[in-house]
Amino acid sequence: MNNLLFYDIQEYLDKLNKISKTENEVLLKEMEDLASRLNFPIVNRSVGRFLYLITKLKKPKLVVEIGSGFGYSAYWFAKALDEGKVILTDYKEENIKMAKNFLGKANLLEKAEFRVGNGVEVAKEYKEVDIFFFDHEKSKYLDTVLQIKDNLKSGGLLIADNTLWHGKVLEESPDNQTKKIKEFNEYMFSSPEFFCSLVPIRDGVLVAIKL
Amino acid sequence: MNNLLFYDIQEYLDKLNKISKTENEVLLKEMEDLASRLNFPIVNRSVGRFLYLITKLKKPKLVVEIGSGFGYSAYWFAKALDEGKVILTDYKEENIKMAKNFLGKANLLEKAEFRVGNGVEVAKEYKEVDIFFFDHEKSKYLDTVLQIKDNLKSGGLLIADNTLWHGKVLEESPDNQTKKIKEFNEYMFSSPEFFCSLVPIRDGVLVAIKL
Repeated sequence: MNNLLFYDIQEYLDKLNKISKTENEVLLKEMEDLASRLNFPIVNRSVGRFLYLITKLKKPKLVVEIGSGFGYSAYWFAKALDEGKVILTDYKEENIKMAKNFLGKANLLEKAEFRVGNGVEVAKEYKEVDIFFFDHEKSKYLDTVLQIKDNLKSGGLLIADNTLWHGKVLEESPDNQTKKIKEFNEYMFSSPEFFCSLVPIRDGVLVAIKL
Repeated sequence: MNNLLFYDIQEYLDKLNKISKTENEVLLKEMEDLASRLNFPIVNRSVGRFLYLITKLKKPKLVVEIGSGFGYSAYWFAKALDEGKVILTDYKEENIKMAKNFLGKANLLEKAEFRVGNGVEVAKEYKEVDIFFFDHEKSKYLDTVLQIKDNLKSGGLLIADNTLWHGKVLEESPDNQTKKIKEFNEYMFSSPEFFCSLVPIRDGVLVAIKL
């Protein structure tokens, strides 16, 4: 696959996703279209499905998102939960309002808690977390993991979006933000506290299990 | 990431894998070098790590591989098992012998069962399977899933390697083998019995949870 564009593979995955009968298809499309219209960064359908599958396997009771935007990833976590809750955080009240509206349409409000504020500070309030999801300011990932890793259960997951950062992690002279993401990836892979897999869907999803 | 080569991303993942302290590093390197020397198709380190992580989450008691080669993927399954077994199958006695030798070096023989023969026929002997792993003749994937899906537990996983088939699934006029893989992917994604995610690591790993 030496000459294959990453983009082409993603197109094939999109085609497959489209033939899958999915609950709340209209709502998901509404959220995806809104993101596209506002140029609002959300994970895409493939990542959403991947998060759903991982959540189904993990069976978490407590998922904490640091950076929820208007709730697209939270939708997939909440939808996959048998019991328990996903905590949504965002510093913009407007985003949390939209998230509440979308998750309400999917009848998932009982599985969600909505917090406006600094996602990292809110996250620190929660102990015995089964899954942390990072989707906030990329340069803060490394600092954040140092602050919250003791709040993650043994066997729990840390999932971080944008860890390929538009492919910039491959550049020879990356900018500062990219350097920070590379440092985060290197910290995670070399840490004896985690076992990691970086899954190259969309912008790169790092999945780490706490040992 | 429009102009990014898939190959370059894989190189970055390889670099990250290398900084991870891994048990049995010497043995894994020996297996990987052998595969490279013999041009023997095995999943790579990234896929191995991904299978390990999925197995840690799923906590299976029974993993059945259809097409084990000399045991590289089976190593990762067995290593991740808390209890239970992985069944290795291969039609070549020589491959199974090598697999036994490698898994013995890793002290994993208690977690493995070795069967020489037609992988699909052997697989059908096992009921209540938690994970099926497909890595046999690609044109048989679709026929195989029809034969074994009732032997997979509800909530169990079907994991299939090579579902991007060197990128040939993207071609406009694919050859017959590629057509068969595309039909398998389409069957899996459209089936109401499974929820799927195709993870683009190496040659494409389809992960499906049985609903």
